[in-house]
Amino acid sequence: MAQVRNKQVLLKNYVTGFPKESDMEIVEGSITLKVPEGSSDVVLLKNLYLSCDPYMRILMYKDTPLSLGFQYSPGSPLTAFGVSKVVESGDPKYKKDDLVWGVTKWEEYSLVPSAKILFKIDHTDVPLSYYTGILGMPGMTAYGGFFELGCPKKGEKVFVSAASGAVDILKNKLGFDEAFNYKEESNLDAALKRYFPEGIDIYFENVGGKTLDAVLLNMRSHGRIPVCGMISQYNLSQPEGVTNLANLIYKEIKMQGFIVSQFYPLYPKFLEFILPHIREGKIAYVEDIVEGLEGGPAALVSLFSGQNLGKKIVAIAPE
Amino acid sequence: MAQVRNKQVLLKNYVTGFPKESDMEIVEGSITLKVPEGSSDVVLLKNLYLSCDPYMRILMYKDTPLSLGFQYSPGSPLTAFGVSKVVESGDPKYKKDDLVWGVTKWEEYSLVPSAKILFKIDHTDVPLSYYTGILGMPGMTAYGGFFELGCPKKGEKVFVSAASGAVDILKNKLGFDEAFNYKEESNLDAALKRYFPEGIDIYFENVGGKTLDAVLLNMRSHGRIPVCGMISQYNLSQPEGVTNLANLIYKEIKMQGFIVSQFYPLYPKFLEFILPHIREGKIAYVEDIVEGLEGGPAALVSLFSGQNLGKKIVAIAPE
Repeated sequence: MAQVRNKQVLLKNYVTGFPKESDMEIVEGSITLKVPEGSSDVVLLKNLYLSCDPYMRILMYKDTPLSLGFQYSPGSPLTAFGVSKVVESGDPKYKKDDLVWGVTKWEEYSLVPSAKILFKIDHTDVPLSYYTGILGMPGMTAYGGFFELGCPKKGEKVFVSAASGAVDILKNKLGFDEAFNYKEESNLDAALKRYFPEGIDIYFENVGGKTLDAVLLNMRSHGRIPVCGMISQYNLSQPEGVTNLANLIYKEIKMQGFIVSQFYPLYPKFLEFILPHIREGKIAYVEDIVEGLEGGPAALVSLFSGQNLGKKIVAIAPE
Repeated sequence: MAQVRNKQVLLKNYVTGFPKESDMEIVEGSITLKVPEGSSDVVLLKNLYLSCDPYMRILMYKDTPLSLGFQYSPGSPLTAFGVSKVVESGDPKYKKDDLVWGVTKWEEYSLVPSAKILFKIDHTDVPLSYYTGILGMPGMTAYGGFFELGCPKKGEKVFVSAASGAVDILKNKLGFDEAFNYKEESNLDAALKRYFPEGIDIYFENVGGKTLDAVLLNMRSHGRIPVCGMISQYNLSQPEGVTNLANLIYKEIKMQGFIVSQFYPLYPKFLEFILPHIREGKIAYVEDIVEGLEGGPAALVSLFSGQNLGKKIVAIAPE
């Protein structure tokens, strides 16, 4: 049976410190476009878009502390979220040309177990690439973390860290009431007091370290801190110490770490909520799409340089 | 109208570092044993037992971060939990000779607003002093924190820090499965791995700092950390940094600070649960009772020396 080229991005070595492009390498493998005989639980995917997400850095550690059901190892392609088209399916739930999003690999074609997280894409009046972001894993992360763990009430004050991007774009284009660049603030505590004179009810935590420490001083009584990520810590050999945790007691704060998969059962409800917002133009959404698998390593590395704006995606095949 | 002596323990100065006996002073004031005319919301109490509790240290800070509805100020008697007898009540809910526990002051007689937390004591077949501990605020703290926030399930592994006392007493008398003295462990992480080879489901946090940091490495997926106190940090000018908080994400841990008052509505349910255990001798409970208000400062200071065993109480009048 004919084989086709299957370009891949492999992890070259486990990473210490900031990830570099050279920690990955592009290779040209080949693949037979056929599900192996008798594989009733395997799907062959043609990958269209791959998603660059900060958690991938944690999986690049030897002995990663993160268990997502998949791991990275040197010499293997990165496993990550993407949007794909079904080439062939051993699992009768999927058929040729179905569009799916979920866990695939950084390569042109992937054989994945169908039991891995795959969601069928039913709505294609919105850009397919959105299923790597606002309509996919990151969207569910924001939705579940904010609504299910944050339990927002009308009038409450919300702080989101690492809403990366230029401050003027966050305010003028993305609709935040206020925004500041932490690199321009010599005193984070003072900055938070300026923007939240009455304190913070919900802190959507993406950063950790010094930012968390300053936020803890500015939380209100009965505040909630959904802990989505701590990106400032992922590349440090020794994480920063957080010193203000006693505020959890004084202010009766609930701080809750989560992994998005716990919210997957809410996906249909989430779509019902978010799709009308998108169709009616009520949500500003920015994508930063890199063309070609070759650009993948640089795209991934850029997440940690602070220059990222919008959802970083690698487009590897036309829709 | 005749006045009687009213011995008091005053805060002398706001405290920095470890509290010392000399941060307090005993004075002999006097009081008229009469509720002021027209005071329909005031109760005059004769205090029987006063409770020494670690949170009192936090109130000794100038600009304390803890809001309990009362504060300490130099020259005033300490406000704290105790067991008292009603001498006279402006509030018709209470009558002479009622026994109560709740927020009173470190003195022989106290005029307190009845709206302050006062619970009537209906069960006197158990020692009255128990209402400073197992049947009072500390008991409710343990009950609410453990059952309401810890949500224990059968078979889960529980770690309680600062269950102060000699290790052999914790195991042989108080019924803990295992116990260790953190001062004898050069590596807390290794100690926890030895005692919890499968990890910790519920960590009842009383200590903070290095202990919390080691526990975070040993929590199981979906663990819960009710945060009751961080006694290791209260006397430090610069709290220790906690570096392993990213485990909150990796293990989807819920860490929740609390103040006991949120559980007060459960007090009747708590009594129904705990009284039979006490009456049937199913709970080992140890008290460390100091006689006389003069011993109060030393008793309070001893909470922080690590030599405490059992509930520390100051008995100031016979029942």
